[in-house]
This record gives sequence, structure tokens and C-alpha cells, in this order.
Amino acid sequence: MSTDATHARKLYDAAVVIDALNVSNWDSDAVYESLNAGGVAAINATQATWEGYEETLDLIAKWYVRLRERSDQILLVETVDDIHRAKREGKTGIIFGWQNTSPIENDLDRLALFHKLGVRIMQVTYHERNLLGDGCMERQNGGLTNFGIDAVREMNRLGILLDLSHVGVATTQESIEVSEKPVAITHANAKSYFDHRRNKTEQAIKTMADKGGVIGATCIQGFLRNTYSSTIDDYLDAIDHLVDMVGVDHVGIGTDHTQDQPEEFWKYIGGQQGTKYPSSFTGHSGMPLAWEDQYPVGLKTPDQLPIMSESLLNRGYSDDDVIKILGGNWLRLFGEVWEA
Amino acid sequence: MSTDATHARKLYDAAVVIDALNVSNWDSDAVYESLNAGGVAAINATQATWEGYEETLDLIAKWYVRLRERSDQILLVETVDDIHRAKREGKTGIIFGWQNTSPIENDLDRLALFHKLGVRIMQVTYHERNLLGDGCMERQNGGLTNFGIDAVREMNRLGILLDLSHVGVATTQESIEVSEKPVAITHANAKSYFDHRRNKTEQAIKTMADKGGVIGATCIQGFLRNTYSSTIDDYLDAIDHLVDMVGVDHVGIGTDHTQDQPEEFWKYIGGQQGTKYPSSFTGHSGMPLAWEDQYPVGLKTPDQLPIMSESLLNRGYSDDDVIKILGGNWLRLFGEVWEA
Repeated sequence: MSTDATHARKLYDAAVVIDALNVSNWDSDAVYESLNAGGVAAINATQATWEGYEETLDLIAKWYVRLRERSDQILLVETVDDIHRAKREGKTGIIFGWQNTSPIENDLDRLALFHKLGVRIMQVTYHERNLLGDGCMERQNGGLTNFGIDAVREMNRLGILLDLSHVGVATTQESIEVSEKPVAITHANAKSYFDHRRNKTEQAIKTMADKGGVIGATCIQGFLRNTYSSTIDDYLDAIDHLVDMVGVDHVGIGTDHTQDQPEEFWKYIGGQQGTKYPSSFTGHSGMPLAWEDQYPVGLKTPDQLPIMSESLLNRGYSDDDVIKILGGNWLRLFGEVWEA
Repeated sequence: MSTDATHARKLYDAAVVIDALNVSNWDSDAVYESLNAGGVAAINATQATWEGYEETLDLIAKWYVRLRERSDQILLVETVDDIHRAKREGKTGIIFGWQNTSPIENDLDRLALFHKLGVRIMQVTYHERNLLGDGCMERQNGGLTNFGIDAVREMNRLGILLDLSHVGVATTQESIEVSEKPVAITHANAKSYFDHRRNKTEQAIKTMADKGGVIGATCIQGFLRNTYSSTIDDYLDAIDHLVDMVGVDHVGIGTDHTQDQPEEFWKYIGGQQGTKYPSSFTGHSGMPLAWEDQYPVGLKTPDQLPIMSESLLNRGYSDDDVIKILGGNWLRLFGEVWEA
């Protein structure tokens, strides 16, 4: 290993590495082995995409079983201190996160219940319509509803981080405006880097950053500029583009890794409102249904994340910058939002 | 009784009287006694306003019990023939209807299941946002969603009548455009008669009528021009206004009677997404919470409906016109839509 490579590895090992979006097959042993091997201190682990109230409660019950059975590999993250503890103990902290607010159905009181159960990140909408707003694949592009405004206020009060990754343009913008706390875009790139409905407008990214938020650049190839032939270099370009736009304090990593997910997973998350019907998510047409085929070579699983340290240093980032991008910015944001 | 009054009563007794919206307390004996006494051949009986899938299935199960226990008073309406049978037998036909599409939650397949269970009328939205569109009290005013367009197509295929009474302006308009069958506004008046969010635009009423639809004028005082001091004359003005606008073939009765409903009912239907939180339904502020105080004197319950025959004749309507307004137009529309 060259001196540079040795330094990069040491820097990686010192960093509190946080992946702001992982939606892998949580029943696969390989997933946890890979997270530990990659030295990932915490992930935003997706629990729900289209699920309702009872289904999500059951998903959380299953998570408690995993946390008990895999206590040598993972721990539940409810505070920033839990992330530091995971790092110290060589484990991966599991942040309970949702890609939809469908689990609360029509009842705002359920937000406090789910917060108590450990949920710390909620995406305001998934691809389509929900009771709060419109998703990025919805033909409607409205802002927050009455219910949505009240939900954002309650999430603010409780200390639940708003995620706007899959959220439609108008609902994204209004969520940023209405939220009294900084918000996140955990896994998306800039439309000005690659124009796709799942990538975010410059206005959204800038206003989010102005309010102290963080965007996690995603390496899922559909949202990189060379789509399914995109490389790690394309991903680094996406990161550079975001840093150029809003500065190094507002950019992190949100891989959207989907390790060991079966084909049915893609049909479910891409289906209309979570059903078998084809959705309007035309961005998924032509998408491979094998998870391995959706990430750049060398960045398909969390154990490959250490390459990011050397890659960022090679792009001219300082040690401090690398620490921030690999997780430091998420640590700051989580601290600001979760401590209610 | 004068000759005129005798004629009016004979005409009423000959008419197939249909009330396109009744949302009474279905566990009250007085409700069924009043319907039979009023010679009402059929009502659109509201089952659900905010309820979800399982709750609505249970509500239907309870309806089957009522239909069995009260078989001398009521019968289930699944076809227009069932309405004629109810009339012949001196009973009141119960049309299963919803004021929201919340019962299907996110699954279009449930439309066929509910149709099989007997549901024949569905309001696209209630006051606020749902997965199909935006309600009339919602701060958002978008049209149909992707899911909403597919839902309308499935309702058309099955022969379920779309109701647009509480639906927002844009979603109302797009539902009329997308539906390949005529649609209904079962209980609302014209905004041009009395400007209220619950009353409908001239554009909506006219385009609905152009496609063969029917609007049921409502006598609930909040939507009459003298609100809580409104009289039967104000209600007749509302009917005249609609007939002037779209002709006598497109106007019916939709009282919105709420006999024996407790105060909790009003808080529930007016609450945000069916919860205890105050809704955006500012139209309900200052509204009395006693059902008796919400209708003109002389038109508070179905047994008082016979007055409508003489009242309409006094306004210059012909016998044929009265027959149409009292139920003939609904019969025609139901026949066109339900026979898939």
C-alpha cells in the first residue's frame, strides 16, 4: 500500500462513516457482515416504503428481534451518542427510517408512538401521492396538505428528521419552508448534474442547505449521468457537483444500497401505491431487477465504501472535508434535529 | 285537503322518491320509521366518511344484520329493479354509498370486492386529501392522481357511480372529464346560488350535466343562502337555480339528512382526516351540533318529504318535472351507470 493509500485508509478508519440510505434485505446475514466489514458506524435503514400502520408496527417488532439476535453486529440508534457507541464497539448503528409517511395513515398521534419506538427519519412522501403531499413520480405536483403541515410541525416537535429524497418538487419546497428544523435529502443527486425526476432541483438543494440541511449523494446508477454504465468517477462527479453548489458542510453519502434484495422488491417499490399495478415510475422502465447491476463496479456493497476515502482525497478534498462527507455532516444534522 | 293538495299528494305517492344522500344514525329505529312514513323508495345511505379497509368491511357486515333484522322496512339496492321492488313493497331501498374512497386504501382490487358486497356510489374524496384527489376543504386543489385516474376507470368498468359533492374544484373537474360514464353530485348546491366551499362551480355543474349527470340539491342549512335561518323556500330557490342552469333532467334531491346523529358525529366528520384534530373545514365553525337545528322547519326528516311535491307544483313545475326531481332523474342515472 502506498503512503497515500495508507493515509486514506487511516482517515477512513478514523471517520464516523454514515450511510444515509440503505434498503437491503434485512434477513440476509451478508448485509450485516458487509456493513461491519465496511466499518459503517450507522445507516438509515429503511423500514417502510408503502406500508400502513399495522404492517409497520410488525416490521419494527421484527427489527427488535434482529437487534437482539445480532447484538454483536448492530445496535439501535436513537441518539447521536448511540452512533459513537456503535463506532467504538465496531458495530453498525441502525437508524429506523421510513421512505413514506404511510405508516401513520390518518393519525398524527401515531408520530409520537413511532418516535418512542425509535423511528428518527421519515421521508414525507414516496413516489406518489400520500395524505401529506405528492411524490416525485406523481402526475400531481402540489405542496403540503393541511394534514401535511400539521405532520411537519409534529415531526419538528418530536425531533424526527424530514427526508425529501423521493418527494415531488412542490412538496419538497414547501416542506423546507414549513419545517422549523433543518431537513435532509438522504439519497439523491442534483437535476443539474443529471436530469431525472428522482434528482433534486437546484432551488431545493440550495434552500435546504441554507437552513442547515444535508444531501446524501446516491450511487444508484439510475440517477448517475451514465446510468447503468456509470462508474465511481461518475459518482464522485455527482458529489463534486453538490459541493460546488452548496459547500462541503452540506453533502454526505446516501448509497441506496439494496444488498440481496430479490426481484419482487423492485416490483413492490416501483408498483402503484405499493400494489402489483405498474406505477407511473417510468424512470424504472429498463431498470435491471438484479440489485448487483444497479451500482458502479467497486461500490456495490458497504464493505466497498473504504474506497471513498482515497477517491475523495484524489479529488482534492482535505482530510477534514472527507470526514464531513463520510459522516460528519450527518452527525451534526442528526444532533440538531433529534435533540428535541 | 284542497284539490291541489290532493293532487300533489297523489303525485308524490306515484313518484319513485329517491334521496341521494342520507347519513342518519343507522341504529335508530326512528330513522327507518321516518323513511317508510315518507314513502322514500331509496336512499344513498352513507357507510363511510373517513374509514379505512377493515373498518368499512365491518360497517358492511353490520348493514347485513340490519337488512335481515329490518326486512319489513328496508332492502338492499344493487340494481334499479331493487328500487322498484322497494317502492312496490312499501319499503325503503338502501343503496350502499361512501363519502370517501378511503376504504380501498391503496389497492384498486378492493373496488371489485366492495362492488360485490353491494357498494354502488363512491364519493371520490371527502373534505381533505386522499390518494385519488383533493377535497373541497383541502388547502391543495389538484386534480386526480395517477392512482385516481386508474380508480375512476375501474369504477366505470364495475358500474360504480362517482359522487363529486365534497370533492375539490380541480379534482371534480378532472373526474368529470376522465369518467366515461355520467357522474353525480348527490348533495350540494350551486356556488352561484350561495358561495360556499361545499357548493359547486357553474363549470362543474354544467359539464356534469352535459355528460348526463345529476345534481341533488341539498337542504342542509349551511349550504343554503340564509344558512341557519333558511326555509323550505330557500331550498326551492336552490332547486330553481339548478334547473335554470342545466334543465329539469339533471336535478334531484339529496337532503343530507342526519337524523338522530349525536354531537360526536359532527366532530368526527368535521375532524382532520377523521381524527379529533380540528379540520380546515372552517365552514363548520359556528355550525350547531344538534342535527335538528341544521334543516329548514318542515324538512328535518324523511317523513316530511311529501311537502316537496306541492312545493314544486306551486313553483310551476309540471307533474312530469316533479316526478323527475323527486327521483326519476336518479333512476335514469343509476340505470346508466350501474348496468356495467
